[in-house]
Amino acid sequence: MLTSRSVLRALALASALVASTQALGQAVPARQANPSQPQAATYRPEFGTMWTFDAPPLDYWRRTYGFAPDQKWLDHVRLSSVRLPICSASFVSSRGLVMTNHHCGRECTAGVSPPDSNYIQTGFAARTLADEKKCAGLYVDQLQSIQNVTDRVRAAITGNTPAEQAAQRSAVISQLQNECNQQTQLTCQVVTLYNGGIYSMYRYRRFNDIRLVMAPEGDIAFYGGDPDNFTYPRYDLDLTLLRVYENGQPYSPPDYLKWSPAGAVENELVFVVGNPGSTGRLNTISQMEFLRDVGYPATLAAYKRVLAIYAELARTDTSAARRYQNDVFGVANSQKAVTGYRVGLLDTLSMAKKRAFEQEFRQRIAANPQLQAQYGGTWEAIAQAQRELATFSPQLRYYGFGGGSQLLQLGAGLVRVATESSKPDSARLPQYRGAGLNNIRAQLTQPIPIDTAYERLAIAAQLRAAQSALPANDPFIRVALGGRTPEAVAADIVRNTKVGDPAFRQSLLQGGEAQVNASTDRLIVWVRAVDPLSRQVTTRANALNAIIAANSEKIGQAIFAAYGTALPPDATFTLRISDGLVKSFPSNGTIAPYKTTFYGLYERSAAFDDKDPFKLPKRWVERKNNLDLTTPYNFVSTNDIIGGNSGSPVINKNAEVVGLVFDSNIEGISNRFIFSSDVGRTVSVHSRGIVEALRKMYDGSRIADELQGR
Amino acid sequence: MLTSRSVLRALALASALVASTQALGQAVPARQANPSQPQAATYRPEFGTMWTFDAPPLDYWRRTYGFAPDQKWLDHVRLSSVRLPICSASFVSSRGLVMTNHHCGRECTAGVSPPDSNYIQTGFAARTLADEKKCAGLYVDQLQSIQNVTDRVRAAITGNTPAEQAAQRSAVISQLQNECNQQTQLTCQVVTLYNGGIYSMYRYRRFNDIRLVMAPEGDIAFYGGDPDNFTYPRYDLDLTLLRVYENGQPYSPPDYLKWSPAGAVENELVFVVGNPGSTGRLNTISQMEFLRDVGYPATLAAYKRVLAIYAELARTDTSAARRYQNDVFGVANSQKAVTGYRVGLLDTLSMAKKRAFEQEFRQRIAANPQLQAQYGGTWEAIAQAQRELATFSPQLRYYGFGGGSQLLQLGAGLVRVATESSKPDSARLPQYRGAGLNNIRAQLTQPIPIDTAYERLAIAAQLRAAQSALPANDPFIRVALGGRTPEAVAADIVRNTKVGDPAFRQSLLQGGEAQVNASTDRLIVWVRAVDPLSRQVTTRANALNAIIAANSEKIGQAIFAAYGTALPPDATFTLRISDGLVKSFPSNGTIAPYKTTFYGLYERSAAFDDKDPFKLPKRWVERKNNLDLTTPYNFVSTNDIIGGNSGSPVINKNAEVVGLVFDSNIEGISNRFIFSSDVGRTVSVHSRGIVEALRKMYDGSRIADELQGR
Repeated sequence: MLTSRSVLRALALASALVASTQALGQAVPARQANPSQPQAATYRPEFGTMWTFDAPPLDYWRRTYGFAPDQKWLDHVRLSSVRLPICSASFVSSRGLVMTNHHCGRECTAGVSPPDSNYIQTGFAARTLADEKKCAGLYVDQLQSIQNVTDRVRAAITGNTPAEQAAQRSAVISQLQNECNQQTQLTCQVVTLYNGGIYSMYRYRRFNDIRLVMAPEGDIAFYGGDPDNFTYPRYDLDLTLLRVYENGQPYSPPDYLKWSPAGAVENELVFVVGNPGSTGRLNTISQMEFLRDVGYPATLAAYKRVLAIYAELARTDTSAARRYQNDVFGVANSQKAVTGYRVGLLDTLSMAKKRAFEQEFRQRIAANPQLQAQYGGTWEAIAQAQRELATFSPQLRYYGFGGGSQLLQLGAGLVRVATESSKPDSARLPQYRGAGLNNIRAQLTQPIPIDTAYERLAIAAQLRAAQSALPANDPFIRVALGGRTPEAVAADIVRNTKVGDPAFRQSLLQGGEAQVNASTDRLIVWVRAVDPLSRQVTTRANALNAIIAANSEKIGQAIFAAYGTALPPDATFTLRISDGLVKSFPSNGTIAPYKTTFYGLYERSAAFDDKDPFKLPKRWVERKNNLDLTTPYNFVSTNDIIGGNSGSPVINKNAEVVGLVFDSNIEGISNRFIFSSDVGRTVSVHSRGIVEALRKMYDGSRIADELQGR
Repeated sequence: MLTSRSVLRALALASALVASTQALGQAVPARQANPSQPQAATYRPEFGTMWTFDAPPLDYWRRTYGFAPDQKWLDHVRLSSVRLPICSASFVSSRGLVMTNHHCGRECTAGVSPPDSNYIQTGFAARTLADEKKCAGLYVDQLQSIQNVTDRVRAAITGNTPAEQAAQRSAVISQLQNECNQQTQLTCQVVTLYNGGIYSMYRYRRFNDIRLVMAPEGDIAFYGGDPDNFTYPRYDLDLTLLRVYENGQPYSPPDYLKWSPAGAVENELVFVVGNPGSTGRLNTISQMEFLRDVGYPATLAAYKRVLAIYAELARTDTSAARRYQNDVFGVANSQKAVTGYRVGLLDTLSMAKKRAFEQEFRQRIAANPQLQAQYGGTWEAIAQAQRELATFSPQLRYYGFGGGSQLLQLGAGLVRVATESSKPDSARLPQYRGAGLNNIRAQLTQPIPIDTAYERLAIAAQLRAAQSALPANDPFIRVALGGRTPEAVAADIVRNTKVGDPAFRQSLLQGGEAQVNASTDRLIVWVRAVDPLSRQVTTRANALNAIIAANSEKIGQAIFAAYGTALPPDATFTLRISDGLVKSFPSNGTIAPYKTTFYGLYERSAAFDDKDPFKLPKRWVERKNNLDLTTPYNFVSTNDIIGGNSGSPVINKNAEVVGLVFDSNIEGISNRFIFSSDVGRTVSVHSRGIVEALRKMYDGSRIADELQGR
């Protein structure tokens, strides 16, 4: 699947931000021309195809495919699309059916399960409307309009320092959102495109009554589990069907996607409409090199350590394997994704293309004295900051409280809340400013289960890694270990701390700085000793990252100044439309076919002797003979997607559903920084597979008829 | 499939050599201890597991698998194995059934087809013994015994120069073979192991009455065609069943392999018994680097040119696509193989292992003054010769008559036969010495079809490649092109030569040197002009290659002196036994299962919309419902194989057939130089798939019963 855990968290935050804003401002239809858009430049494939709905590349489409949709088509498709808190989705019937992925509806599916059963295990298909189950707290957002507000944002930024400018930017964005929310009663969000090259107001209609109509068993939705995750050929029914209700009745959306009779066909033009979360295609070469050589290798090493800890726990405690199954999967998923990101950065051909682009881009800027004055120094400023960051990267990583230990995090929180509380707001560590302090204080009082076996291993592993990455005479090593082994320090801390006890934390929080300073709790003592070193490197890194952020913003503005919307902006978890072809690709010495069929599902089960994670759900064994095994099941296309696109519809030129996006192949993961459709592919459930499964496996003809408009 | 065309040719030659020898000498059973074997050293995985039957690594097997067969088991397995002219095979029933690959029996299957049909297309299964069809000219050889004859060979080599030594070696080997043939009435061959570290007499019993029992359709035997060739997962029934007859009756072999009821099971120990053709694991680093950087890149460029020519022909002439289908496949197969060989050499980790081995090996030699005196200089001698070869590699490749043109080859033959005939034998080019001259003369009088469209393209492509590889002022370019374009020269030669006419060739051969020198035929004139340059570089290269050959022989001897039979010798198309496990492997971001089933066959057909080369034969569509689709069909194991192993049985600890080797996966091709079982795998037809297909698809219960001993 697409959405890595960390992406999930980031997106959940972004979404929470949107949710917390209220309404004002004049709705402007999406088709309105963008007034500040510079003249068109040539499309560059390495920037991908995540187009915004207010700047569709009609000429490029016409040239490439002999097809360009009209505004009516674009409006219809935009209004047929909806966004879930962390996924994409679409209206697919006249009575408000919404199609998304199984992993996007997972929380609802689990939540509406009866006490004696779990729909994630058993699957669920509502026989009648009355059987459809309300998903607590779930909502979908439908994009009503996009308005360019760049001029208003820019006008408000008058300060001289990055800090002043950032505060002014935040303020004007909040103000614009509030105005819009109040004026329109819509959910409004100012979206920062091209790192600030454009600011756009996105206005959403929110639907709050969402009910579960159908979800298959988790084992068929995520068939092949972690091994098959991010790969193709693939055999997953990664589907949830929801229904939007209004006033207790199914909602009849004026715009919804009709169902294609044929489904995706080899070599046909298809569009993916959804909300890609985050890409790094505007990154400079120096940023990419830092990730490739410093950032990602360290991240991957950390994943490896965590997985080793889970494996160690499972070896000695059989229940641990079950208990940590989701965490293991989450880390393995991230590991596969980050490995893929790095593969892209290690590809010398792709990097050469990127280098050539950067050179040409800098020449364009240099050719215009005004642009050169404004942006000429940005690349070197970023490169210098990256170089400096690289010089103390091990210190930044290990001076502190990382490595997955809950206890270290709690201990650090307690010490820092005490220290920061006594300072004026502006002098605090960034996370402790404003509402931050109280939020962290509140979190510290929550009950958090502590697994001491895990804690011992995690702390020891982190200290061992520090020991091997830092010089022997490093001050942190001296303070943190005091001449003892990592294992001894970890065991000592875990044995002799009460920080795992919420009451103890509560009492320390109440006692304030004095009590924290006087505490003889082994963990608190340890944190107090380590914290000054940690603050020092963090402060130094924050300053450098601020330089990078400010200059990245300039890069985005410069790209927009030089190329306009000929290059799509980086992903922002907002609605995009990506063009592509249904297409096989060279793989494993041969050809990966453009589609799979149900035969392949039964092959994979038989080839692995039906062992986990290739075990078929009972229903799929018992009802096998009902199926036409030649029915297309999954397929691939060259569309440009990333985490957040999960649940996006794949549509044909008639705006009919031909599939449901649920993953990228492993070759496509490296598209994060440099897009290529040579072998990278979007993986989708085929529309014919969905209908066949509904009718033959889930007694879901009611639903299939509705999808097919019968 | 395993056997590349070039390997096929080489093996056919090797086999012809064996066939041309006659009989003498004392048969010694294979179990006799090898008297000159030095003390055991540690097994090194990068040298693979192609063990000879007279030096099975019993300790290593016992240590690794807790299993080591006794001598009876080894004799039984050896005598159950047979060798076809270019493949491996085995006795698999008490009535002389022989199992091999479809591509090994192809010539017989096509040859015995009735005039109105082709068994390659239709498949064939004899209903009764009487229906079994005699394969003209086919024979199988059964290895009776192995005797170490190193001392006798060495004693005969007394000369001082490499040329003298080579002649003496040839003479003594011929003498030993003749003695053996006469004494035993067996087919005897002296096999050079470890490049001359050991000479072994292999004695074979030959069976000449071989009949076709069963062969499936070519389209199911080689399902997936060129794309799936050398890959896995795989779905091929690459099977031919033959029967050995004696005196017009089925032969009852005292030793044959019984059929395993279960077939190959995940993680079980299995052995492959067969005749691997050729490996390069004793090559030095400098030889490998030459191939990696000079030899293979040029070979791959040549394949690319030839494929481009076939594609060009197919574009303008629809019949050409059909006509050249086999050639295109042959080149594509070689291209895939050589690409794979090079991948192994480009793998820095593998090469680092090899480098470490070479260093350790040289230290072992250096530690013994006698060995150091004998072998210490070999690595540098080879490296120096390789370096010098590299300096004129483009000249060597392009000064001459290559590029696939029949006309250039014929023209060169005519000119050279004339020139060489007038010299004393020892002064001739090597191929024209002894019987060579008359053989070449005879070949030149054969009718050879000439495709002028192909010839024009091939000559032009070769000259274009020469033009781009050689400096502008190169003498060959001046002489060969004379200021014209490659296309003009090619068109001129093809239009204005009669060399394609056998009668013209005959008349030139009869006219001798004078007539050749006087000829105004455009091609003969061109060859006369180019030939001196060609001879010059060829002579220089021959001298360097002789140095490399003589020193490679020393390397082999040195390896044997330092490690004994702890490292298996390079492949020699003689019987070997390789140990391995039935085992899945990491592939394509996920796991390739240890086996496939018939479900996968139908998946692959459906996923490609049953398009060529994924089209199912009619029988497999019509009788699909007869099959148990969960039956294991193909599987993989970690055994060590290469071209020549095609048709080898895979057996379990009970010496029962569990499968039939037919290919390597693409990851395994690079094992040619450095063996690794990380991801390289042997691909086999599963014994259960064979029986299921015989019974359900081919009305072959008579045959299946015989295999299963019913």
